[in-house]
Amino acid sequence: MIRPRTPPGVLELLPREQIAFQRMLDVIRRNYERFGFLPVETPVFELSEVLLTKSGGETERQVYFVQSTGALANAASGASAGLPELALRFDLTVPLARYVAEHEHELSFPFRRYQMQRVYRGERAQRGRFREFYQCDIDVIGKDTLSIRYDAEVVAVIHAVFAELGIGAFRVQLNNRKLMRGFFESLGVADPQQQALVLREVDKLDKRGAEYVRQTLTGPDFNLPAEAVARILAFVEVRSGSHADALAKIDQVLAEAGGAGGQALREGAEELRQVLELVRAMGVPESAYCLNFSIARGLDYYTGTVYETQLVDHPEIGSICSGGRYEDLASHYTKSKLPGVGISIGLTRLFWQLREAGLIEGIAESSVQAMVALMDEAQLADVLDIARRLRAGGINAEVQMEARKLGRQFQYAARAGIRFVVLAGEDELARGVVAVKDLLREQQFEVPRDELADTLRVELEQARALAGR
Amino acid sequence: MIRPRTPPGVLELLPREQIAFQRMLDVIRRNYERFGFLPVETPVFELSEVLLTKSGGETERQVYFVQSTGALANAASGASAGLPELALRFDLTVPLARYVAEHEHELSFPFRRYQMQRVYRGERAQRGRFREFYQCDIDVIGKDTLSIRYDAEVVAVIHAVFAELGIGAFRVQLNNRKLMRGFFESLGVADPQQQALVLREVDKLDKRGAEYVRQTLTGPDFNLPAEAVARILAFVEVRSGSHADALAKIDQVLAEAGGAGGQALREGAEELRQVLELVRAMGVPESAYCLNFSIARGLDYYTGTVYETQLVDHPEIGSICSGGRYEDLASHYTKSKLPGVGISIGLTRLFWQLREAGLIEGIAESSVQAMVALMDEAQLADVLDIARRLRAGGINAEVQMEARKLGRQFQYAARAGIRFVVLAGEDELARGVVAVKDLLREQQFEVPRDELADTLRVELEQARALAGR
Repeated sequence: MIRPRTPPGVLELLPREQIAFQRMLDVIRRNYERFGFLPVETPVFELSEVLLTKSGGETERQVYFVQSTGALANAASGASAGLPELALRFDLTVPLARYVAEHEHELSFPFRRYQMQRVYRGERAQRGRFREFYQCDIDVIGKDTLSIRYDAEVVAVIHAVFAELGIGAFRVQLNNRKLMRGFFESLGVADPQQQALVLREVDKLDKRGAEYVRQTLTGPDFNLPAEAVARILAFVEVRSGSHADALAKIDQVLAEAGGAGGQALREGAEELRQVLELVRAMGVPESAYCLNFSIARGLDYYTGTVYETQLVDHPEIGSICSGGRYEDLASHYTKSKLPGVGISIGLTRLFWQLREAGLIEGIAESSVQAMVALMDEAQLADVLDIARRLRAGGINAEVQMEARKLGRQFQYAARAGIRFVVLAGEDELARGVVAVKDLLREQQFEVPRDELADTLRVELEQARALAGR
Repeated sequence: MIRPRTPPGVLELLPREQIAFQRMLDVIRRNYERFGFLPVETPVFELSEVLLTKSGGETERQVYFVQSTGALANAASGASAGLPELALRFDLTVPLARYVAEHEHELSFPFRRYQMQRVYRGERAQRGRFREFYQCDIDVIGKDTLSIRYDAEVVAVIHAVFAELGIGAFRVQLNNRKLMRGFFESLGVADPQQQALVLREVDKLDKRGAEYVRQTLTGPDFNLPAEAVARILAFVEVRSGSHADALAKIDQVLAEAGGAGGQALREGAEELRQVLELVRAMGVPESAYCLNFSIARGLDYYTGTVYETQLVDHPEIGSICSGGRYEDLASHYTKSKLPGVGISIGLTRLFWQLREAGLIEGIAESSVQAMVALMDEAQLADVLDIARRLRAGGINAEVQMEARKLGRQFQYAARAGIRFVVLAGEDELARGVVAVKDLLREQQFEVPRDELADTLRVELEQARALAGR
């Protein structure tokens, strides 16, 4: 006998949890499709040679390699050297790059795709860290160029998704890498590597405090003037309130830099300004976006707009949706220049965090909307017919296939989270009606047998409307 | 520069193909849910020790093993021996067994689950063989016992799924392993292994012809009497026409066996009869099911009802949905007895076959229902507002973010399979209307700006109703 168990680092759900998770996936998909993004799915494994183009040591250490039994035997006998042929995807960006480069001549640009699949990382096992998790991504890929307007549309998508998910007030935080670069240049920190090192120190603000960071940056490792450090610390603390305040904050950076920021600063400021104006024109409420000049994200990857999204009342959860603008998606695979902008929602981790924080229950009402009870074997044919009509009327219905004590049937429905129990006893059938017990409202009513599906559909639609879904 | 390509043996789709595939997945899921099945997803990898309990050499040779970079290094240095710790699932049945055994005390029985995920087999690469493919499974699992009635419900589910998929006339073919066993016993072939060998010869009927099989079975390897062989060949050719004919065919087997078939034959006949009667009671039309006594399927696994499903006009495609009743799901993981019944649709292969046979186009209309054109930069704000209202009205809408030649915008929409192009030029906006070009019906009309979403929704619903969806 083998003890049944999953490997560590995966999140496996019970059915009612899975339904709750699935509803979140459905909301995300619906909103991605609503904005015109097209579905793409890629294989779980890629050729290692294709997947591991970037010589990122950190990345490689976290990769899962895949070998068939035959390949494993060859490796053991020394017949093959080097890395295994296949590896599991560790994100959806590299597969997207490969996909767009491979199918470049069959796609229309700007190419807008969504992809919602699991990715794999050989993380150290620890609480809240997953080796398998869902990513829900959108990207818009241009050929040669891509309008800044898509950077704004992405914010509108984030807003639509999280408004419908209904997990509380949230705010998309915007920054721009060019603006940051220009700002550092205006202080004389022109080398990108040096900028990265400074930002790494600035990132320690929360943990070590301003005084520690100030001393490091003015100390022997960096040798920055005290005035420059003061301006850096002020810069990364910028958060905007209203839309007008955001525009003012951008002007202020420009004004303070004088002419010293050069082209990058002016371009970044102009991009940010356009994105803000378009986000508003797209109907996103002011409360749902702001500037946050501390956001840098993947320093060598993003080149323009960058996003993070926070729950207003739960900043400790960190960013629930991040991304940005990049210069060239697929330079390893094609000579075409493919700029893009995109975001990712790590839904497995988000679901886990929301549940841990008590922000979602983590279990849903059943996907089964009605259970047809069987009280007496003599009524089996009627019960089957009632269920058939419910399904034809668009109701998800389950039949109790064996007559057992009614109490146990109710217990089963309640435990399963099924809202309606349909009872068709001898008496009801003789009168052409069925009895319905609504376990949510705790009330019982009778309805003509022919009107059952319509009645339940109306009830369910009312509940949906009330829940704002 | 690395050539972007997928590994062999996977089916990667372009967006409009992916939309067609996704619609099939959605139909299957909707019907599974309609019958009260609950969603389950399991991790792509399982512990090898847990996954490979059955000592099936053939199975093991097709397994893909998974190793992180660290584990790979250990293996290379000889620090670890034996199989890698993780392996990709090769079906959804073993993960289901592990899941049910692991969560036994948190599930309600009969436990009805659906699972639609990809599985992995290290198949030899050849046309139409996939190393990664979707399986769409349902199973009902009982604790200790499970009513035969679920065997009938499974047929009703198959019927609902394939009726809505709309890929042509189909027929669920039924048999029963007990009936087969009893039949062979009545001929003196009582040993299960011997029965399996006989069936393997019978399977060659199509290829080698009746005479070859007759000679083998009466020859030195089997030594069966000519009369027994004649009855075997007649038995496996039984197909029923109508419902009444199916019942008559069962009676005939019983009559011909006299008392010789024993309990297994009587039980099998009784089960088949009940399943047929219930399938009819569930409203499945007679044309959609029949008996086929040649169907055996997984000889050591299934113990009662077995199913295969064929397209009536394309039997060469083989079974498009198969399964059956089994005695004990999870005997490797738990002492509880867990009988079950289930089916599987191998959707990747089915999609590929249907497309090859020209039975589906394999590409769908876009999931994007309307494209809002941009004719002049001055109208950007209006265009964004029109798109926002379309989305709020439930229409999937894409905006052309940059003004380019109208011809190119139409070309883009046509190529992408988008039905409606919305035009809001200076003239239309001044009159409070928008122009809509319907690329499907090739007609153009004007509609008040405020009524756009409602109008398109009605058009789309009409199209859906006409298509019978």
